[in-house]
Amino acid sequence: MSLVRCLATLNRAVVGGGGVSTLLAHQPTIATRAATQSPAIFNFLNRNHATHQTRTSSGTVRNASSSAPPLPADRETGEDRRARVKSGSAEENHHTVATSSAPSSSLQISEATFDANRSRVVVTVLLADDGGATEQRYEFPAVWLRDNCQCERCFHGGSTSRVLDWERFNVDGVNVVRVGVLDGGRSLEVQWGDGEVHGRSVYELRWLLGRSFRGADTERYLREWYRPEPVVWGAAGFGGVLKEFSFEKVLADDGALRQWIETLIAYGVVMIKGAPLTESECRRLADRVGFIRKTHYGEEFIVKAKEGTSNVAYLSTPLQMHTDLPYYDYKPGCNLLHCLVQSSNPTGGENLIADGFYVAEQLRQHHPDDFRLLSETLVDWSDLGADEAGTFHSIYRAPVICIGRDGRLERINHSVPQRDSHFSVPIDRVEPWYRAMQRFVTILHREAVSFKTAPGDILTFSNVRMVHGRTGYTDTAGNTRHIVGAYLDWDEIYSRWRVLKAAAVSDREGK
Amino acid sequence: MSLVRCLATLNRAVVGGGGVSTLLAHQPTIATRAATQSPAIFNFLNRNHATHQTRTSSGTVRNASSSAPPLPADRETGEDRRARVKSGSAEENHHTVATSSAPSSSLQISEATFDANRSRVVVTVLLADDGGATEQRYEFPAVWLRDNCQCERCFHGGSTSRVLDWERFNVDGVNVVRVGVLDGGRSLEVQWGDGEVHGRSVYELRWLLGRSFRGADTERYLREWYRPEPVVWGAAGFGGVLKEFSFEKVLADDGALRQWIETLIAYGVVMIKGAPLTESECRRLADRVGFIRKTHYGEEFIVKAKEGTSNVAYLSTPLQMHTDLPYYDYKPGCNLLHCLVQSSNPTGGENLIADGFYVAEQLRQHHPDDFRLLSETLVDWSDLGADEAGTFHSIYRAPVICIGRDGRLERINHSVPQRDSHFSVPIDRVEPWYRAMQRFVTILHREAVSFKTAPGDILTFSNVRMVHGRTGYTDTAGNTRHIVGAYLDWDEIYSRWRVLKAAAVSDREGK
Repeated sequence: MSLVRCLATLNRAVVGGGGVSTLLAHQPTIATRAATQSPAIFNFLNRNHATHQTRTSSGTVRNASSSAPPLPADRETGEDRRARVKSGSAEENHHTVATSSAPSSSLQISEATFDANRSRVVVTVLLADDGGATEQRYEFPAVWLRDNCQCERCFHGGSTSRVLDWERFNVDGVNVVRVGVLDGGRSLEVQWGDGEVHGRSVYELRWLLGRSFRGADTERYLREWYRPEPVVWGAAGFGGVLKEFSFEKVLADDGALRQWIETLIAYGVVMIKGAPLTESECRRLADRVGFIRKTHYGEEFIVKAKEGTSNVAYLSTPLQMHTDLPYYDYKPGCNLLHCLVQSSNPTGGENLIADGFYVAEQLRQHHPDDFRLLSETLVDWSDLGADEAGTFHSIYRAPVICIGRDGRLERINHSVPQRDSHFSVPIDRVEPWYRAMQRFVTILHREAVSFKTAPGDILTFSNVRMVHGRTGYTDTAGNTRHIVGAYLDWDEIYSRWRVLKAAAVSDREGK
Repeated sequence: MSLVRCLATLNRAVVGGGGVSTLLAHQPTIATRAATQSPAIFNFLNRNHATHQTRTSSGTVRNASSSAPPLPADRETGEDRRARVKSGSAEENHHTVATSSAPSSSLQISEATFDANRSRVVVTVLLADDGGATEQRYEFPAVWLRDNCQCERCFHGGSTSRVLDWERFNVDGVNVVRVGVLDGGRSLEVQWGDGEVHGRSVYELRWLLGRSFRGADTERYLREWYRPEPVVWGAAGFGGVLKEFSFEKVLADDGALRQWIETLIAYGVVMIKGAPLTESECRRLADRVGFIRKTHYGEEFIVKAKEGTSNVAYLSTPLQMHTDLPYYDYKPGCNLLHCLVQSSNPTGGENLIADGFYVAEQLRQHHPDDFRLLSETLVDWSDLGADEAGTFHSIYRAPVICIGRDGRLERINHSVPQRDSHFSVPIDRVEPWYRAMQRFVTILHREAVSFKTAPGDILTFSNVRMVHGRTGYTDTAGNTRHIVGAYLDWDEIYSRWRVLKAAAVSDREGK
């Protein structure tokens, strides 16, 4: 970590700011699927979002809303219920603590113990509400608990950063000697036998549940706070896909900003309407999210045909369907295309767009060999020329269908002009790859939709997912097509989305 | 492709500019390994670098130096040797053409034919020089040849871009009916039987050889023009690793710029000496390559401790070894750290650095199970706070050791503060992962070296490869440590390297 990162880590501020709590009505996948996992605990956590201050074991007052990430599971119930402190050991295993009565709803540790190897701590959590009481059992690895001790020596709360010295961290020395329940069942205490001066750690139940290792809980966390699953669509389903947002509202209102981003995550394409007809609007929109992604073509690109140009071959020919800049290791994540003047010829200048993830899924389901070829064959993408950042000679090798390390569809690459004549693969793979590619292109065109942007529209779409193009058009002296474009990266888009979502959770809690 | 990209593709300039041709004397891996593959052809291509203009089949004059990439294999010999035009067919297969005598050295097609399926063209290439004549046999898939037809309808030479319409491209319709040898053996002609108006393609031999599908040739191309292999090093070998370059020379001279980049590619760390003691020098250096990579911390970061600060805990504590910003999907590729004022305490403020690729290779060789765990387990990296680009909440999941789609080591992630307490893995994997991580950290510290930068030094190192840290130090009122940092991305670094290399090849040819 560089020095400035150190400073930033140590001094960084708490995420905050205004926001709204509503999830998109038209985007049920993000909100509702989570409820099917661990439904009792999940529902409880979603009914109880009061913020709180908790005195930690080391005596520091820490606001839960400053913990990263500000999960629903990080929020404490307003109830301050008591439960007897309970300690466990390998010998006195499975001693269950009887809890007091459970009005409305409450969440507490009813038992804490550890396994015979002293390498896992087992917490039984009692959820009690008007409908009765249910228990859930959670396990946490001792070494993970020790690594994530929340005391001031091991963890810097203001920056939500681990400061434990890993040069001296001894994995084999981690050894639970005693566990206990504190704060009326709301915290877990672990005592260590590793001989360190620091022999005791305390963890809030909420914090623990937010880091549950149960598969369904992990999946929910990733879906809710890491990257929601996209909703793929074919041409037949496009009618319900292309949502419109007001430019001014997205600029002024965090709720609208978040809705735009969530729709972009879900469907990959969103129309923003009513932007002023000046060349700086893509930048204003990008600044709401983070900042423009610069490439060797610069930050913004302004395309304006000459009046009555004779050079229509350069400016108005059809653009084959493609993704932008596949020759970048990290190609720009999202396109912003602001229409200032559209071609008035009724049959030219249409945008073409298709969901590359949908096409990939079609291949995966119906032509698995083609899917495998297109997802395993490294294609050489390249671009050679000169522009704003001087001369460039970019090359990147990646498949047409890129699957991420987590198994998800991650990126689609397709560009006829930017696919290099170098094809660095064994010769036996060439012909099968071309056949698979023909299938891809056939489905792509079958599933493509077209529409025409109007002045004031900013068409926003994912460049890692959407394959797009444009029909040819004709400029005249009185009608000169004029588009301004810019890029955003998904690193920044997801970041803004999480900040807005956390703020919305805080707002919902009436902070 | 956006409109501006279309324009850029169609109008882009030829790569050029000054440069030097020398490869680094201390970096033999990039230059010499290639010579072991296809040695006869390779040596020939490296002895004959005269640029040329060739009239293509469609009559256009195209300069070879404008072809992407400007491979040695793209260069034509000065010899204008004649060879009889030869056509082949499935019936008249394997008719070898006798060539004329071969003074000094020459390269020509001695036979061109195709296989019984009409799906591959087979070219026999005769290299003749003072030492005698050798023949090599090359195969090219018909579908690839058709896709890469170099005529004006299919390919835009000025932009080195394929413009063939893929919506109408019929893979199954590709069908060779006749092949021929043109231009004294320097070009291949293919006639197609697919019924298209366009029934004939012509390819220069140099162009074809630069795109050979033979494994050794493909590997050489990738190593020479895509990404050279890094030279990993442990602490014992560091003496010969840390090269120094003059800041002013790197800024003024393309040869020095290229040497710095090649050393950075090879060893991952380079010292630049003698930068002026002002805060703008990282930007000047970055602009020589491309442009600064912006993050949510901004473009440049200026770290200057307060005079006699009492807040030494924040400013001068040791920094554990780490890589920067692992929570970015595309974390910054290369660090530039410019020292303006160094701590004068002789025992504080040292840089620590280790080659993460070397550590990974040690694990791969000696502890393969740990290597597997660290390369397969997705770790949650995160950063939550506020800085130049407003509030942020970044999360990215990636292993500590990332292997790219091409099987190479691609990226090392390690940061104790930025590894999230969320660990979204099956619980059974947790403890083994911690043990593997302990091994990684142990080897990392064993193989770390330390040194102290002086005012005017810009320490440059790969953030995807080097794991770095800093010992603690003490500021006083009269000695205030002052560092300016910035990032570059490898996409831009490799691009600049290729541009410089191509220019050097041109220079060597005495253009």
